Amino acid sequence: MTPLVPSWLREYRAEWWWGDAGAAVVVTLLLIPQSLAYAVVAGVPAGVGLVSSVVPLLIYALTGRSHAQSVGPMAVTSLMVFATVTRFATPQTHDYLLLASLLAILSGGMLVVMGVLRFGFLADLLSAPVLAAFLAASAVLIMVSQLAPLLGFAGGGATLPALLRSLWQHASGIGHEAALLGCGALIVLLVMKRHGHSLLPGAIGQMAGRLFPALVIVAGTLLTCSYFPEVPHVGAVPQGVPMPSWPTAVASHIPELLIPAFFIALVNYVQSLSVAQWLAQRRGETIDPDRELLALGLCNAGAGLFGGFPVTGGLTRSVVNEQAGAQTQLASVLTAIAMVLVLVFATPALVWLPLPVLAATIIAAVSSMLVFEPLRLAWRTDRADAVAWLVTFVLVLLLGVDTGIIAGVVVSLASWIWRSSRPHIAELGRVPGTEHFRNVLRYDVERLKDTLLLRIDESVFFGNQRMVRSRVLGAVEGAPALRNVVLVMSGVNRVDVSALTMLGELDRTLAGKGLTLYLAEVKGPVGDVLDKGGLAQGFAGRIFLSAQAAWLSLSTPADFQI
Amino acid sequence: MTPLVPSWLREYRAEWWWGDAGAAVVVTLLLIPQSLAYAVVAGVPAGVGLVSSVVPLLIYALTGRSHAQSVGPMAVTSLMVFATVTRFATPQTHDYLLLASLLAILSGGMLVVMGVLRFGFLADLLSAPVLAAFLAASAVLIMVSQLAPLLGFAGGGATLPALLRSLWQHASGIGHEAALLGCGALIVLLVMKRHGHSLLPGAIGQMAGRLFPALVIVAGTLLTCSYFPEVPHVGAVPQGVPMPSWPTAVASHIPELLIPAFFIALVNYVQSLSVAQWLAQRRGETIDPDRELLALGLCNAGAGLFGGFPVTGGLTRSVVNEQAGAQTQLASVLTAIAMVLVLVFATPALVWLPLPVLAATIIAAVSSMLVFEPLRLAWRTDRADAVAWLVTFVLVLLLGVDTGIIAGVVVSLASWIWRSSRPHIAELGRVPGTEHFRNVLRYDVERLKDTLLLRIDESVFFGNQRMVRSRVLGAVEGAPALRNVVLVMSGVNRVDVSALTMLGELDRTLAGKGLTLYLAEVKGPVGDVLDKGGLAQGFAGRIFLSAQAAWLSLSTPADFQI
Repeated sequence: MTPLVPSWLREYRAEWWWGDAGAAVVVTLLLIPQSLAYAVVAGVPAGVGLVSSVVPLLIYALTGRSHAQSVGPMAVTSLMVFATVTRFATPQTHDYLLLASLLAILSGGMLVVMGVLRFGFLADLLSAPVLAAFLAASAVLIMVSQLAPLLGFAGGGATLPALLRSLWQHASGIGHEAALLGCGALIVLLVMKRHGHSLLPGAIGQMAGRLFPALVIVAGTLLTCSYFPEVPHVGAVPQGVPMPSWPTAVASHIPELLIPAFFIALVNYVQSLSVAQWLAQRRGETIDPDRELLALGLCNAGAGLFGGFPVTGGLTRSVVNEQAGAQTQLASVLTAIAMVLVLVFATPALVWLPLPVLAATIIAAVSSMLVFEPLRLAWRTDRADAVAWLVTFVLVLLLGVDTGIIAGVVVSLASWIWRSSRPHIAELGRVPGTEHFRNVLRYDVERLKDTLLLRIDESVFFGNQRMVRSRVLGAVEGAPALRNVVLVMSGVNRVDVSALTMLGELDRTLAGKGLTLYLAEVKGPVGDVLDKGGLAQGFAGRIFLSAQAAWLSLSTPADFQI
Repeated sequence: MTPLVPSWLREYRAEWWWGDAGAAVVVTLLLIPQSLAYAVVAGVPAGVGLVSSVVPLLIYALTGRSHAQSVGPMAVTSLMVFATVTRFATPQTHDYLLLASLLAILSGGMLVVMGVLRFGFLADLLSAPVLAAFLAASAVLIMVSQLAPLLGFAGGGATLPALLRSLWQHASGIGHEAALLGCGALIVLLVMKRHGHSLLPGAIGQMAGRLFPALVIVAGTLLTCSYFPEVPHVGAVPQGVPMPSWPTAVASHIPELLIPAFFIALVNYVQSLSVAQWLAQRRGETIDPDRELLALGLCNAGAGLFGGFPVTGGLTRSVVNEQAGAQTQLASVLTAIAMVLVLVFATPALVWLPLPVLAATIIAAVSSMLVFEPLRLAWRTDRADAVAWLVTFVLVLLLGVDTGIIAGVVVSLASWIWRSSRPHIAELGRVPGTEHFRNVLRYDVERLKDTLLLRIDESVFFGNQRMVRSRVLGAVEGAPALRNVVLVMSGVNRVDVSALTMLGELDRTLAGKGLTLYLAEVKGPVGDVLDKGGLAQGFAGRIFLSAQAAWLSLSTPADFQI
């Protein structure tokens, strides 16, 4: 049993206090604009972002293991919430808000179940290129969707065509004061983001650059309140501390939300896990993925029950937390307390927070997600991975974030299966004077006259057994001097029943042509299957430990005269 | 270009004539009851089965390469037609018949396209256990669906629960004369099937056993016509030769029929291909799968245009054809002529063919498809394949033949990916006095004190890279004497971008713990990817040609004192 008091609290040392307290102040300054902005992306009132920050911070501190992980609203998660809930309700309405909370509860519940069942491996469904393409395309969608609020007019959509159509239709409603404020803020933010760190030296400069959005928001709020009251702003924020409740009114939508909730859970987990892994690596620690699943699940379920939307670990925020000195999860607890104080006392000031400036902070933040390096790497090394990147990127833009990620998973699984289905098969020869056998096309090797050595560079299964069979038969065709065929199985890690059946048939077919089939370098697990499938008896005396043993046994004196 | 006159006709020899003519007579006797019966399974009038037999026989003779292949109506194909078309129309109606023809045209067209594009590999989607389970469950569905006509009452359905419910509701309508006739025929057929071949010696006995259904049908027809006119019988059969036409009236259903047509095409192709392969193997010939695709596609499209339903190659029929002496495709042409004569002259006699006896021939025929040997083999050798068998079997019964086969494909792909995601990783040691390295758990081998050799028995990709990483890190944990880790890559046939990223990270993590990572036995294609991904530079001097080279280079004088 895990004790109720977390280990970091039981072992707390006084010298950690100032680090934790300092980190809390810095993270609060970062988290306020982030939580307001990502609430806007998710389509819920900005104030809901504050609730969605506080609850996960506390829950993660009690259940999570990573000392600096900062769980809260994040851009892509919010976009996924918007793409899902917008199908069932209008953004900013009461029903919409309840559905967003329900989504958090459902995906949190799924994460908890996955954690308990140790199903963390499901995160492996997302390959690196698919995840990278998904994040880059999401960044494009978020940036385009924020153009309307940036320029002070209405409009939105969940796919790029819908967004562009909406922009086209509403562009005449541009607000000049809003556009001025928004574009001004955006330019300042982008310039500071690129060059800000050079104004102040080292880590302090980097930190200042990251906290600059908070400063811009304060300045924007003051400007709006004083000079531009017409510019769209956040408006009334519900005050006080919310109570937990189950969103009964929308519970009938649960079946329709299950699949989106699963993919939100998956994406959130992968993001959160990569942050936790990165933090652990810096301290030379290892993490328990299933424990992280559980903690993230509880954070989401908790956020949902308090009326918030889905959350995940954010890399920027966690890095800021760690660099500002966070020693333990106490930093998160203190951040949560600071956020509650904001919720209770500072909400009147948030009323005048201008939406164009919030849009500018969102665009500036997600612009760093728009990286194409993974595509370049994939293109250089593995075209199938590059195709998976492109398909995912294009489909997320055209069909939306939820269909796009499913397509990405399908494409990467299909391309892996596709490549398994066309195995590399090499004819081997012996490197003269050694016991090593290499591809006759890559190395200068010696061959035997009446014996063909073929190395199958793939596990044999239903998807490639027919091709392996026809490749072997093709290789013996038109070689009348051949008497023996040796399949070198060093690359065959597994065989299934279809492959087993094929091997038996191949043996009979070759025997019909006057050829004897041998196996060499059969791995333990493959040998076990041959054995249980009754094939080992048929091949008795025809399985060699190594290619060298086959070579010595099958070579004739004549071979050595050449 | 393939000449218009097929090669078997250009090279025809007089001595083949009697074999072909004899085979035609025998196959016609077998084909008449089969085509009537499978028309009933498909839900179309029995006479349509005759059309669906003649057209494919002629088309295959002109385009196919297998000398004894007999393409025509088959049980499982007919069941798939029923399961699909019954969703859009009532069996035995005009619209239903048009939809069945449209399905044949569509799946034929797909096969032709697959043949032209050389997409025959799509057949590899069906693993041996999934196909076996699919056939066995289809046999159960067909047998249960024929209980109602066997006993002389109405009822039907596409899934086992629907069939059982329908049987329960209609059971009171049992016809006593029909049940007598049907059960009598069934008992005679099953007894003859099991023991008939022992009445006459050798091949003649086997042949007689296979032609017995024709005899039972003639006897049943005479009995019905003379003594039991009340027993449900075939009734009016459309006479004359049909003309080709496009089913315009139902063309709007094409989008809904595409997926079922694809799976019908796939199943038909796999069945037909396995028959052709079996026949070719007996003659020591090889077949061209893409050519077979094309021929089968034309057979189906042709059958559909003449108002027939989807067809495929049947093992029993082809074996009978070959054993009865078929030398060339002329046997099929003669069979087609004999069937046309039946269509034109004998249809009045078919009117009195009793449906219970037809049901009995169906049940007796498909009972041989109910084999559980593949499940036993899978259970013995590969539990995942056994699970795929069970899932497919149960889902075909519960959800129907179309959902079931999709589920089967998904299950077998998923189980293959699942097994790839949990790679076998072995610690290696050297077999004393040799250059061979083997699993320390299976062999008695020597190890180095500060060097760990790990062989990864799987291609590394997004689905298992996280697990490979954590297994390697787990293996070095708690071994403070360790200085070097060698990954022996003989089982790694491919790596993708995710794996590449992981390897770079793993190298840095191990370096952080004071360990050096080496690679050995990197295959050509893997080395190419490391190279293009920029990892080869980082590993320069740390990639050994063989495990032996790593051993020699990393062993210290101290190792030899032990």
